[in-house]
Amino acid sequence: MGRNRPTRYEHLADDMADAIAAGLLKPGDALPSVRQTCQQRGISPSTVFQAYGVLEARGLIEARPRSGYYVRPQRPPARRVPRAAVPRAEATAVAVSALAFELLESTRQPDVVPLGSAFPAPHLFPLDALARSGARAMRRLKPTQITSALTVGDAGLREALRRRYALQGVALGEDELVITHGALEALNLCLQAVTQPGDVVAVESPTFYSALQTLERLGLRAVEVATDPQLGVDVDALAALLARQRVAACWFMPTLHNPLGALMPPARKQALVALLARHGVPLIEDDVYGELYADLRRPPPARAFDTQGLVLHCASFSKCLAPGYRVGWAAAGRWAPAVQRLKMMSTLATSLPPQLAIADYLAQGGYDRHLRQLRAALATEQQRARRVIERHFPSGTRVTQPAGGYFLWLELPPHVDALALHHRAMAQGISTAPGVLFSADRRFTHHLRLNVGHPGDTRVDAALRLLGEWAAG
Amino acid sequence: MGRNRPTRYEHLADDMADAIAAGLLKPGDALPSVRQTCQQRGISPSTVFQAYGVLEARGLIEARPRSGYYVRPQRPPARRVPRAAVPRAEATAVAVSALAFELLESTRQPDVVPLGSAFPAPHLFPLDALARSGARAMRRLKPTQITSALTVGDAGLREALRRRYALQGVALGEDELVITHGALEALNLCLQAVTQPGDVVAVESPTFYSALQTLERLGLRAVEVATDPQLGVDVDALAALLARQRVAACWFMPTLHNPLGALMPPARKQALVALLARHGVPLIEDDVYGELYADLRRPPPARAFDTQGLVLHCASFSKCLAPGYRVGWAAAGRWAPAVQRLKMMSTLATSLPPQLAIADYLAQGGYDRHLRQLRAALATEQQRARRVIERHFPSGTRVTQPAGGYFLWLELPPHVDALALHHRAMAQGISTAPGVLFSADRRFTHHLRLNVGHPGDTRVDAALRLLGEWAAG
Repeated sequence: MGRNRPTRYEHLADDMADAIAAGLLKPGDALPSVRQTCQQRGISPSTVFQAYGVLEARGLIEARPRSGYYVRPQRPPARRVPRAAVPRAEATAVAVSALAFELLESTRQPDVVPLGSAFPAPHLFPLDALARSGARAMRRLKPTQITSALTVGDAGLREALRRRYALQGVALGEDELVITHGALEALNLCLQAVTQPGDVVAVESPTFYSALQTLERLGLRAVEVATDPQLGVDVDALAALLARQRVAACWFMPTLHNPLGALMPPARKQALVALLARHGVPLIEDDVYGELYADLRRPPPARAFDTQGLVLHCASFSKCLAPGYRVGWAAAGRWAPAVQRLKMMSTLATSLPPQLAIADYLAQGGYDRHLRQLRAALATEQQRARRVIERHFPSGTRVTQPAGGYFLWLELPPHVDALALHHRAMAQGISTAPGVLFSADRRFTHHLRLNVGHPGDTRVDAALRLLGEWAAG
Repeated sequence: MGRNRPTRYEHLADDMADAIAAGLLKPGDALPSVRQTCQQRGISPSTVFQAYGVLEARGLIEARPRSGYYVRPQRPPARRVPRAAVPRAEATAVAVSALAFELLESTRQPDVVPLGSAFPAPHLFPLDALARSGARAMRRLKPTQITSALTVGDAGLREALRRRYALQGVALGEDELVITHGALEALNLCLQAVTQPGDVVAVESPTFYSALQTLERLGLRAVEVATDPQLGVDVDALAALLARQRVAACWFMPTLHNPLGALMPPARKQALVALLARHGVPLIEDDVYGELYADLRRPPPARAFDTQGLVLHCASFSKCLAPGYRVGWAAAGRWAPAVQRLKMMSTLATSLPPQLAIADYLAQGGYDRHLRQLRAALATEQQRARRVIERHFPSGTRVTQPAGGYFLWLELPPHVDALALHHRAMAQGISTAPGVLFSADRRFTHHLRLNVGHPGDTRVDAALRLLGEWAAG
């Protein structure tokens, strides 16, 4: 039942995606025929069809009737995806929280168009069904559950999560999971478990500002690793870094990275985990967007390739099921006992009512159906919003094409001051997430992260158009 | 409406209680007559009656019909209250978490007699009414509430809390409150807001082990201040300490201290706050037992005497209304913005369903009635348990007489190894909280904290009897 490596078809799909990304297969090129590929790799036709199906779903290739598969035309040059940034080699101290705090405050105001928000539209979630589940679960609460759930969390919810991990090919130890107040608490606890103040932590470039804030709060230093907007962390660059300096931990988002949307192919995740195992460096894997993939099946987490207990896998229900419930978790590998103790010292235990509501909801069996609907809604809206952006932003703008999630990352022409653009937009009731938030040393000055997870919000198109006009100056 | 100093009757009650504690008024002595006192202090008879009523409720004096008020006979010497400990003068590093973790684990097991638990019996709480409130509130949830409650917490709950503070004479700023995952998160955030790693923090002696754990986690050093088992922190000893060394903050429980049950009289709280204001030292006031007083009215928190924004008041619903909900808060004075930012960086926001359940419950109006019943149940059980202890523990044992809460603190004869007693008891399915947990340098070796907040648990008496027999050797 356990599956700790990519399947054959995933391997094939990854190889093809890598070849396309590297320009070895160009737009309009025909892919090797199914029969040819079967012979070359010694695999069955159905495996090849599966792989090509995945690439088609990702928008990388297209089937032409009675002709075969072809690499899809790419966006015109003006719409290319952003380039990988070249990060500084030195570790830097971190101070981005003031701007992030301002951004969060704007998220609280319902009259602000939430392009800077970190959350998709709340109407995308089954709030009524969760409320019914919560009411049912709390009616049935046995008083002893209050103490028995202390620190590690409700046994039923932990068991349900373990089952979901097992279906993804990840076998967790029985006592490994700790339920937390959102993934952010899980990440904080895991980071604290594996570091001492002053340590250096490797992060992606760009990286999620909350990671930078957590580093700031714990007195850690960040060193950024080059990150491809589609394929994620550059494993060779990381290898060079590890050869040169002591790194206490990596904090990466290998699946649907925030803000890039990058999705590391399984083989690349496997190489990452193998590299870290050779150096004995723990990986804190932030996987909060893992359920929001646009592919046919869930991408395996890096954790799926871990045989050493070195990957501390953190996730939550906040972005895929129950925003505001603040229910997340850590599967912290060999650090699970340390994380449990830190949890006891910082918030003692996770609030029980939201845990029980979600456990009941999962038991009702509608979760995967909800996820399918959510993924479809987000994918459709992403396509739509990208078309609006392509129409209204100045030429020279590059936009990511993420394989899921609800963020787009824009590289504007270099002369555009994205922070000034953000302030101008805020004054008009439109929030954005300016690029400087996503780096410890305030690079990404002409970049924006835009939240396109608000289907049906009629203010979005006008806001995108205005942003484009202001960016054009 | 604001009341920032003790009322006249509280002043009088405090003075009398101090005189009794100091031995100026001895058991059997008559108190000054009501008329006499009115003349001496220029106050009305009703004020004197109120004050004497409070002292009667605390068990310090008794009314004799047609004769007046008298100091009550004290317990026989063998049952005297524990003596104030003389703490070490130097700051010490902290490492008590392993034992505390073991204790928490035992709390999770329903077959262990929970004398070591930190929580009263769950059946004392209106869990059904809370479940109904939660169901109603979540049915009415507007999706925009999910983002509007980010970080600082639900507006309705914050407003209800502000009203309760106002009724206690504490006027909070509109943006001062931050809802947290229990008081423990509030205390953690407040402590982090006012300290840097390596700083010295003054704590009571003995002190709550979670305070020691938090210090440990944040790399802080503890310096203990002598604490009277009935009157709380020795303000003169603290003054001497502050004159001699830099202290970054105090973390005290002035109201129903854990483990002592000490209740600082209002005048003493006022003197404490004035002393700290002179030195500009913030006070983190842990007030989680404040609603569990045995007196006629709620003792004012130290915060009530603060005019400088130097008192960071932390409390929760976990011990008085909704265990397992993990809803607490900080009123962090001038550090409120800093605490909000730290909250954003560590758990982002507090879980919404439990906040809304409690806000709805408070709006229904039954909270104060519940509290009266809870206080009565705990006071009755405390008296009962103390009688069992007095019957079965060896002579030389001293037991506190707290004015509320559900802990008793026992000073056993000096040769008794309380940690060994704890392990022996655990082997028999009885938990206790050994005294070494309550000090950074593992003093209180012959002390125990016993939880007597389990009325109706038929295992308690036999467990107390066994503990007494083992302690007698």
